[in-house]
Amino acid sequence: MSDRKEFRDLAPPEDAHDAIASLELGGGTETVPLREARGRVLAERIDATLDVPGFDRASMDGYAVRARDTFGADEADPARLELVGEVHAGAEPDVTVTEGTAAEISTGAVMPPGADSVVMVEKTDRVERNSTERANGEAVSGADDGETVLVRTSLAPGDSVMLAGADVAAGERTLGPGTELTPREIGLLSALGVDEVPVRAKPRVGIISTGDELVRPGADLNSDAGQIYDVNSYTTATAVEEAGGEAVLYPHAGDDYEEMEDILTEAASECDLVLSSGSTSASAVDVIYRVIEERGELLLHGVAVKPGKPMLIGRLDGGDSPSAYVGLPGYPVSALTIFRTFVAPAIREAAGLPEPRTATVDGAMAVEERYAEGRRRLMPVGLVSAGPKGQRGGGGATAGGDEHGDTLVYPVDKGSGATTSLVEADGIVEVPAETEYLAAGEAVTVQSFSPDVRTPSLYAVGEDDPAFSRLLDGLDRPRYLSLGTREGLRRLRNGVPDAAVAAGDPEVAADHEDLGGWTRERGLLVPEGNPDDVGGVGDLVDEDLRLINRGTNSGLRTALDDAVAALAEDRDAARRELIDAIDGYELTVKAHESPARKVLAGDADAGLGLRATAEKLGLGFVPLGEQDVRVLANPDRTGKAGVQALRTAVENVDEVLADLPGYRSA
Amino acid sequence: MSDRKEFRDLAPPEDAHDAIASLELGGGTETVPLREARGRVLAERIDATLDVPGFDRASMDGYAVRARDTFGADEADPARLELVGEVHAGAEPDVTVTEGTAAEISTGAVMPPGADSVVMVEKTDRVERNSTERANGEAVSGADDGETVLVRTSLAPGDSVMLAGADVAAGERTLGPGTELTPREIGLLSALGVDEVPVRAKPRVGIISTGDELVRPGADLNSDAGQIYDVNSYTTATAVEEAGGEAVLYPHAGDDYEEMEDILTEAASECDLVLSSGSTSASAVDVIYRVIEERGELLLHGVAVKPGKPMLIGRLDGGDSPSAYVGLPGYPVSALTIFRTFVAPAIREAAGLPEPRTATVDGAMAVEERYAEGRRRLMPVGLVSAGPKGQRGGGGATAGGDEHGDTLVYPVDKGSGATTSLVEADGIVEVPAETEYLAAGEAVTVQSFSPDVRTPSLYAVGEDDPAFSRLLDGLDRPRYLSLGTREGLRRLRNGVPDAAVAAGDPEVAADHEDLGGWTRERGLLVPEGNPDDVGGVGDLVDEDLRLINRGTNSGLRTALDDAVAALAEDRDAARRELIDAIDGYELTVKAHESPARKVLAGDADAGLGLRATAEKLGLGFVPLGEQDVRVLANPDRTGKAGVQALRTAVENVDEVLADLPGYRSA
Repeated sequence: MSDRKEFRDLAPPEDAHDAIASLELGGGTETVPLREARGRVLAERIDATLDVPGFDRASMDGYAVRARDTFGADEADPARLELVGEVHAGAEPDVTVTEGTAAEISTGAVMPPGADSVVMVEKTDRVERNSTERANGEAVSGADDGETVLVRTSLAPGDSVMLAGADVAAGERTLGPGTELTPREIGLLSALGVDEVPVRAKPRVGIISTGDELVRPGADLNSDAGQIYDVNSYTTATAVEEAGGEAVLYPHAGDDYEEMEDILTEAASECDLVLSSGSTSASAVDVIYRVIEERGELLLHGVAVKPGKPMLIGRLDGGDSPSAYVGLPGYPVSALTIFRTFVAPAIREAAGLPEPRTATVDGAMAVEERYAEGRRRLMPVGLVSAGPKGQRGGGGATAGGDEHGDTLVYPVDKGSGATTSLVEADGIVEVPAETEYLAAGEAVTVQSFSPDVRTPSLYAVGEDDPAFSRLLDGLDRPRYLSLGTREGLRRLRNGVPDAAVAAGDPEVAADHEDLGGWTRERGLLVPEGNPDDVGGVGDLVDEDLRLINRGTNSGLRTALDDAVAALAEDRDAARRELIDAIDGYELTVKAHESPARKVLAGDADAGLGLRATAEKLGLGFVPLGEQDVRVLANPDRTGKAGVQALRTAVENVDEVLADLPGYRSA
Repeated sequence: MSDRKEFRDLAPPEDAHDAIASLELGGGTETVPLREARGRVLAERIDATLDVPGFDRASMDGYAVRARDTFGADEADPARLELVGEVHAGAEPDVTVTEGTAAEISTGAVMPPGADSVVMVEKTDRVERNSTERANGEAVSGADDGETVLVRTSLAPGDSVMLAGADVAAGERTLGPGTELTPREIGLLSALGVDEVPVRAKPRVGIISTGDELVRPGADLNSDAGQIYDVNSYTTATAVEEAGGEAVLYPHAGDDYEEMEDILTEAASECDLVLSSGSTSASAVDVIYRVIEERGELLLHGVAVKPGKPMLIGRLDGGDSPSAYVGLPGYPVSALTIFRTFVAPAIREAAGLPEPRTATVDGAMAVEERYAEGRRRLMPVGLVSAGPKGQRGGGGATAGGDEHGDTLVYPVDKGSGATTSLVEADGIVEVPAETEYLAAGEAVTVQSFSPDVRTPSLYAVGEDDPAFSRLLDGLDRPRYLSLGTREGLRRLRNGVPDAAVAAGDPEVAADHEDLGGWTRERGLLVPEGNPDDVGGVGDLVDEDLRLINRGTNSGLRTALDDAVAALAEDRDAARRELIDAIDGYELTVKAHESPARKVLAGDADAGLGLRATAEKLGLGFVPLGEQDVRVLANPDRTGKAGVQALRTAVENVDEVLADLPGYRSA
């Protein structure tokens, strides 16, 4: 930990934007097949090099004629023209239309010499030459030599003919530089016969993850040695591609200077921009810092915005020209936040792409948020739709809508290291240093983590329960945070979520509408066959058994506390005394299956859990009774489609309960 | 043209939606590497199979200690702990923390046995054992055996430690089925070590273009034989991919039954959906119709919505299960309209993708539009932003904005066959059969041709002029329709475009603000070296020379008319008489280069044009004088960014004029 750089002089965020803007991120031109050009941006203007159509073209099925031969013709007094041949689409005419004649013609066919107009087939009849005419509209097959066409309308030259170049004329400007290619532009370029197009090159972005502890997803993990899966490489690579860049993953680098230098210079020689990310280790950051200073130029270290403190911006020598370099923070949400704020706009700019229209969402703060530090921050937030108006989609406020739109915005802070924050937050709100608080209802603009991020259809918080998890599987894009009954009810009281899920018999101080519920059997989970012959909580107190408990937020926890209380009464003992005698009473774990998994792994002799979990994992089960699970809706949101879908799902919960041992209808 | 099917009984559009919904378009599951999963949709719920982190993890750089050893410690009275070793991230601890000891630890490292908390390095000092302490904050290198750590704060168990599973616990539900994978979900899955994910399979969509006249872009075109480039195949394929399908292009089929049957059944055996499109030829449609009836089932033919008349919906036998079939109209805008309205939603549904938030744009009619026929229609429209509020992006009306948003919508109708309509329209407005008119200002919802379609930054109409074309190249996403001076002024009068470009000295009845202009030299373009020795318009009258004129909308046209008028006065002749003597006076072509190209091709002896064009194409030039070109802004739009950019471009036009022979500042 020697030579640690202290980033005491943090640069203003504007300087970070300027520093990145000063770097060259590509911007060249490449040629791609038209078939693969969707989403690319034209690097040059495209002028038509040919006429479309390339010939005078019939735009109706009918007969090619000389207009002057039809002057005065009408329904009662048709012009009689001699049929001299036919012309099909895609074939060169082998007939000439002279005075008093006509040629059958298909839509799209070349106008035969001599003809200047087309009469649509519906305005004609065909008869044997010199015969009496047939009934109007009757189909006659073949183009026999001996036939006459009766034309029942007068034509002007050019009728039903598209002249060569009438659609696009050679030499015309058709598409300008900077045009994003969507299906319609691909169509127009197809019409011009273009099969490759000059487009802005995608900036090539090298991604290096640092830290000895990182393992790429899919590889084996040695947790005892402190290994974790590398989150930032794939996240950043995907975000680079979303911004219009091409991502190149490099092997991850540890803290070794030589190794880091090799990988960084290799990436610099192959890429327009090199991003490092992944490690939270200060020593790895120190090593990178030294490499940049020695093999390039460090423009800026540390940005005065939370979480931009560890950000680096510089240049790296390599290849023909230096590569740009940006070092992202190690925590996943921080890395994505800094990428989205500072790097994605620069990649889009280099790729010639505009900011997506869905890059931001306008909303209103769901709660007041106060800021103690006078520091600019990029605050992670979640989105929730305020009600029926919300189904119209983000930002689409219309007449009668909320002044600030109908999307509510709430802060998400799980501790910056949590990867789960990635999916609990939808984007960030930039809060200036001088802002002391954002009031509830205050308008804010959210920078989405992705243009494809959408406001969840439902936002609920509460007990981690396998039956509710299954109900969620049938809903469209719900967000559920299984933070426990207590936290669910606390948040419901604040009015932010659409619903809470509560287990046990908690005091519900929040206004709510009960959507229904079910009953689950809870107890102690023990190894298969119950080797310690655990009969109940009394054995935990009396025997040398290690317990794994659930957190105090969990409704499941009351199973144990109730049993301890009952035992205390039974034995006329103090609860505290009994609790102190239980080894592991204070040892709480996160999810409903966690205690069971500890028992399964041999780390504990008993864990608090559900009969359903015991059966799923093949563990023994010592019942401690049943408890209710209730789904409680926010009364202001019952009109919302997501809540209505939840109500229906709860009404049909029996389908789900049938598969879950220990569950029954309430 | 025998056996033509008449689609007399058109089905209501709802039946077309239902018929497509009744078809099976895929919906299976496939496994893709996580790295390539962006934009895909989870087919199954993903539960965590491991704890994240997988071990108790230090969340600070500092020292791992036993919290009880620090009780009561503070700045003045630090706890003194013996340093017994260090633990790095990514390494298994080889030290145990016992009473009175501490181990140096890096962020992310495994907590060593015995330790229950981490003290951050900033709250500590290191001293030689038994020595006096050094100044607070001074860095000391190495972890010598003989060192003591001074801890200047009291810790609680768990401080700066992230417990195993605290982020994600094994068994937790992490992402539900139907989740669209954006960078953040890819990040969460990375944390779980997942490297492949089960996603909804992309519906496989076969595309067959029909018609003997079609040639794929890039191949040689024989215009004499009526060949044209195939527009619909690439347009449709791109639109399929945009909707989340996989497009497979099949060779184009002519009108031959056997050939069509072979290709359709091959496609049906390989795809979930087969789309045919491309031909406007009724006979090709007849052949397809027969194949579907004989090798599948026709569910519906013809939909009662303009342009849905030629639409077919059915099933095709092939492979294990029948494939869905939809026949699209032949005209490009019609094909894209029907695809967007009926087919894209079905593909998205099968792919599990929601409708993009930018699929529709809310706006207000810019002009009144009346409908004579009582027929439901899908009206192609263009979008124009009404002013400064428009820069906020489509649909983003906020407080104080126009009640119907600030996007104006105008009908585009170039005749359905034109491929240029593809880029002149931005989407469609569905107009019910009973609607007699849409009033100016009436709110409408536009179905965008692509979620990536944006309202142009500038919409201008007028003279086809090479200097103006170059100015456009420097603007961001302008739309310019070179329909001639007369049409530009007419539209400006209606108040729809942002600007018009007028050449000559036309009467400008529209309110406008003149942004500036330039002068261009026009004349007669003749073959190189002027072999017919053309000296002026008199020669066109007197000699047997073929002329190519420009359309009456064109400001360039006045060059000829003025010259004829002058000659008439000179000769004391009637203008009409002189005009009649000019062979080709009535022969007008579309773009400013078109007459020149006819001369170049030997199709004419003289054409009306610009000196700039003559020099560009190496033709002779007979001057007929100069004319002004003026850029006139809509006075209601001068505050718009796109118009301001245009004003700047016009002010700097000299840079562009320098390269254009015959051009000078006005």
